[in-house]
Amino acid sequence: MLFSLGGNNKSTMDPALINFKVLYVLTQLCGLTMIVLVGTWIGQHYGGLGGSSNPKLEFNWHPLFMTIGFIYLYGNSILVYRGFRTTRKKTLKLTHAGIHMAAFILTVIALKTVFDSHNLADPPIPNMYSLHSWLGLSAVIIFGLQYVAGFTAFLVPGMRENYKIALMPLHIYFGLFGFVLAIASAVMGLTEKAIFSLSNYSTLPAAGVLANIIGVLYVIFGALVVYLATEPSYKRKPLPEDTALLASNGAE
Amino acid sequence: MLFSLGGNNKSTMDPALINFKVLYVLTQLCGLTMIVLVGTWIGQHYGGLGGSSNPKLEFNWHPLFMTIGFIYLYGNSILVYRGFRTTRKKTLKLTHAGIHMAAFILTVIALKTVFDSHNLADPPIPNMYSLHSWLGLSAVIIFGLQYVAGFTAFLVPGMRENYKIALMPLHIYFGLFGFVLAIASAVMGLTEKAIFSLSNYSTLPAAGVLANIIGVLYVIFGALVVYLATEPSYKRKPLPEDTALLASNGAE
Repeated sequence: MLFSLGGNNKSTMDPALINFKVLYVLTQLCGLTMIVLVGTWIGQHYGGLGGSSNPKLEFNWHPLFMTIGFIYLYGNSILVYRGFRTTRKKTLKLTHAGIHMAAFILTVIALKTVFDSHNLADPPIPNMYSLHSWLGLSAVIIFGLQYVAGFTAFLVPGMRENYKIALMPLHIYFGLFGFVLAIASAVMGLTEKAIFSLSNYSTLPAAGVLANIIGVLYVIFGALVVYLATEPSYKRKPLPEDTALLASNGAE
Repeated sequence: MLFSLGGNNKSTMDPALINFKVLYVLTQLCGLTMIVLVGTWIGQHYGGLGGSSNPKLEFNWHPLFMTIGFIYLYGNSILVYRGFRTTRKKTLKLTHAGIHMAAFILTVIALKTVFDSHNLADPPIPNMYSLHSWLGLSAVIIFGLQYVAGFTAFLVPGMRENYKIALMPLHIYFGLFGFVLAIASAVMGLTEKAIFSLSNYSTLPAAGVLANIIGVLYVIFGALVVYLATEPSYKRKPLPEDTALLASNGAE
């Protein structure tokens, strides 16, 4: 089987790949902890989730879905090539596009709930005034444009191979930029929520400590994803069947 | 003269280096605008600078010196190898360490003024409770550890060449991580200041718009620095005299 070529054969396993696996597991643990803690935070301190009849509770979908979609899934979609290195390139590309689409849907719902929670409040709260909203929406727009550009260039057949090669560094750069900007926006969002909701934030009540810990986990998760995605020795090596695919694509 | 080898000879100049120069100038303009706007922001809306007899005005050194030291100088120190590619490696290393030291001194003063502005206020304001303070101080500690590690490994003679080569990717990764974390902390700091000082932030008064624009400039400056520092085609190529230096270092 070709699967053993990717490093699954323990006796000949590249030491770099052992490091990768340890850090990859750590990244997942960090990401899942972050999601559980956001759930705990909104559940224990902010009344849990609700529909548009209760704008304050509807807001709580915003941090939850942004954390799952715009941070955890976005990061995991970036890592899919290196995390599943023995899978065919074509399958990985479809998985990358699929996870990104799931991330985008959750992000759009998360945006809808925050606009609702502002517009349906009594009195209504203005939208899009804070630096958090400016940078957060910029991150979503960058993500959306990246998706269209990446889909057109790398998934729809027909793009010439030399264009794909030229576009790839920009695709990687803007992908990571959008991801880091999402995390920067998220820590600003936590700051806003803590200040707006906790008159005693400076005495570090439980809700404030939890917000801070979630912020630290966002940063550690982001730092791990960027490291795993950029360290050259962790790069996936093409499988023989990828080359066959490449040749057949080139002949289209 | 050897200086022409680095790309100063226009007739044979690498197109990648023309792109680099355009983006490098843009980075400087963005950085200088950012500093001028922070000066305008604290001068026009927060009463300018003051000593420890006026804790509110003493605070204003914090955003100013963090912007100059922990963002602008930090970013420029990162870029020194690629921005002055025809200069000897030894000179560049000393310049890198020198600018970083200047950045560190300004950062420490900026920390001192914020602690003063809390401790000397009546009543005193607690320190180190916000996510901004947790992540910001982490960025300073990472920067400090990086400085000691980098100084020991790359500037003090005696480290074996193969250790230097092995350490360099980590030096680059943690250098960029600290820089990005400094910017994430800075946009959180702007958020805090805008919310604490502007009861009408949601109507976007001049001080709020200015804070948001400064935040956007921080992000653009950071994105440009990281791009210029990581794009492989912009990497400085060793000069013949560097190789001679390397050989003599190796023989020490």
